Amino acid sequence: MKPKFEITKKDRKTNARAGVIKTPHGNILTPAFFPVGTKGTVKGLTPEQIKEIGVEAVLANTYHLHLRPGENIVSRLGGLAKFMNWNGPARNASANVAGGPTMTDSGGFQVFSLGVAMETGQAKLLREDVQEEGKPRLNKITEEGVTFQSHIDGSTHKLTSESSIEIQEKLGADLIVAFDDLESPTYSEARTRESLELTKKWLLRSHKAHRSPNQLLYGVTHGGQFEGLRRESAEFVDKHFDAIALGGAHSSKKNLYDVVEWTVVNVSEEKPRHQLGVGEVDDIFEIIERGIDTFDCVIPTRLGRMGHVFVSPPIGNRKNRFRYDITKAKFEKDPKPIDPKCQCYVCGSFTRAYINHLFRARELLAYTLATYHNVWFINDLTKRIRQSILQNNFQALKKSWI
Amino acid sequence: MKPKFEITKKDRKTNARAGVIKTPHGNILTPAFFPVGTKGTVKGLTPEQIKEIGVEAVLANTYHLHLRPGENIVSRLGGLAKFMNWNGPARNASANVAGGPTMTDSGGFQVFSLGVAMETGQAKLLREDVQEEGKPRLNKITEEGVTFQSHIDGSTHKLTSESSIEIQEKLGADLIVAFDDLESPTYSEARTRESLELTKKWLLRSHKAHRSPNQLLYGVTHGGQFEGLRRESAEFVDKHFDAIALGGAHSSKKNLYDVVEWTVVNVSEEKPRHQLGVGEVDDIFEIIERGIDTFDCVIPTRLGRMGHVFVSPPIGNRKNRFRYDITKAKFEKDPKPIDPKCQCYVCGSFTRAYINHLFRARELLAYTLATYHNVWFINDLTKRIRQSILQNNFQALKKSWI
Repeated sequence: MKPKFEITKKDRKTNARAGVIKTPHGNILTPAFFPVGTKGTVKGLTPEQIKEIGVEAVLANTYHLHLRPGENIVSRLGGLAKFMNWNGPARNASANVAGGPTMTDSGGFQVFSLGVAMETGQAKLLREDVQEEGKPRLNKITEEGVTFQSHIDGSTHKLTSESSIEIQEKLGADLIVAFDDLESPTYSEARTRESLELTKKWLLRSHKAHRSPNQLLYGVTHGGQFEGLRRESAEFVDKHFDAIALGGAHSSKKNLYDVVEWTVVNVSEEKPRHQLGVGEVDDIFEIIERGIDTFDCVIPTRLGRMGHVFVSPPIGNRKNRFRYDITKAKFEKDPKPIDPKCQCYVCGSFTRAYINHLFRARELLAYTLATYHNVWFINDLTKRIRQSILQNNFQALKKSWI
Repeated sequence: MKPKFEITKKDRKTNARAGVIKTPHGNILTPAFFPVGTKGTVKGLTPEQIKEIGVEAVLANTYHLHLRPGENIVSRLGGLAKFMNWNGPARNASANVAGGPTMTDSGGFQVFSLGVAMETGQAKLLREDVQEEGKPRLNKITEEGVTFQSHIDGSTHKLTSESSIEIQEKLGADLIVAFDDLESPTYSEARTRESLELTKKWLLRSHKAHRSPNQLLYGVTHGGQFEGLRRESAEFVDKHFDAIALGGAHSSKKNLYDVVEWTVVNVSEEKPRHQLGVGEVDDIFEIIERGIDTFDCVIPTRLGRMGHVFVSPPIGNRKNRFRYDITKAKFEKDPKPIDPKCQCYVCGSFTRAYINHLFRARELLAYTLATYHNVWFINDLTKRIRQSILQNNFQALKKSWI
């Protein structure tokens, strides 16, 4: 069964919509946040905790799983969902579905990222994906694809449209992504067009290579910060694919929102739209308002491990980006929960003082608790936005937050 | 209410017994294994997971909690159990008890350990407690107590019988331990006697300093490997204390078992007996058979984090110490659970291949899953031994294991 998207309700005043993506591993209620489980685990959480949080689907990285343990092992063990024992949201249990919904990316971002990061000075933006890097890799890009060195053992690998799709078929996620070139926010329009042309070729080859009847293949839109290229890319992807992933580079938050607008008006309404790698609180409201159905982001997990925890208004606001650093000395004796308004397990069970202690003592539980809270926070916010769309009060909810 | 011990059933052929320690934070069914939560957290596990495992009580280290976050902060936040949100075994919930049973040690072992370890070459035995050490500490031992430097900031602290008890009162565990000198297995009998005499003085001062009506104070038996000293120490502790903790050094496994025998015959039957820091599978059978009620051990947690996981017979046996290294390449594709006979969450949910992958990728979940399984394994074994005592088949259970 091929995953299928249905729109349940459209917001009256904006492009926001609530819907459902029906997959062989259960339904994804949208708008939905996909936490990132890079190597087949959302860092610090058991799949039971992910379920308890109410997560709809998990995104894993093709690049990492290809290098270790390898797609053949994942496939032999039943595919990504079964491999990591992710059984989806609690409502799946009654549906007797084996495994929960998952998505994989194309691997392209990771293959390119260090090279581009070094070229453009964007390395700090890419920490999550290249965190194991000790030294620069030599990546060679040709029209055929990318030859790169493993960050684990230095061995040489090649990723192409065809191999990316083949790996993703073996990993067995429900939602997969076509292979694309990586563009940089520092590229000129001419250089961005060059990249877009290569991406178009790779997308078509990905589409041709895609055979699995149970996976929905997302084409990726590119075009950097440039309206003309973005519109062209959106039309191209919409012409060839049944699902739209918004990728590529942006020059600012405003540009990100503009890009969503330029894209959405140029793709078919009935196709699901996934925003790759975005997920600050304000971004979530803005992209959903403009018609995004799903998005993945490492911010809740990565920042959680650093001790940066999310907090609701009025403590949280646009200026502090709805978060604070719980490792600071001022929380040493604080008996309050991370977020007094939060209903999650962590906020119902632990004080800021205890979590502060755990971070200072570098205890494993620190990373688990902060990650749990952050994923819960972003997931819950997304679910509340879904509810607000269903109940015709999206604008009121947005106003109360930002 | 002072914790109170009751014997439920005595084994007909051995000194093994099943009982209950009633504490202000709920009952501890014995024999019981206490996992170690050094700094107020069993490394890698949430208190919900500890409860799910069925743990009876958690032991924390006075030394570590004194240095960080400090006993005053723990006290202000409701004491150790509440601080870490440990609510005890599931049956506690219905009893409406706030917090679960806990124990703290005296801090003596950690204060001394690095000094003695360096003197005797036993450093590798002490990894857990001194793992954060980067450099030797200068500890000064006088009859008054021990002056030592914090491993965190180098500040100078003094631990005495009086301050140990005061700190433990503030930490608020149900079961606490009197301050003792540390003896080494390399000591001569004369040197061990010297240490024993100092321990006696410190025990009496600890006893005198102890005032809290809700805490049960364990006296600690010493005397190294020497039968005469051990018998003398047991009588001394029995004369002054309502609970017996077996401490000190041993020269071998056989000597450990002999020491338990020499001690048990010289203390009152109705007093609870705690074996400090012992917990290999064979040791557990042997010490319970000789009359031990409770014991704490870092082996399940420490080894778990290294990837050494426990396994039942017939895979597990005395020779492999009932465990194996799951990080080995041969488990890379193994679809079996860690222990095919184990009923725990981890064995019911994950393959060896997945856990092997998590360890190789250094994912946080690796430490959580291996720790969960190991604590479950040792806790379940101890509970099965309890059942066997109640059902008059302890010897048969022991025979089926070792």
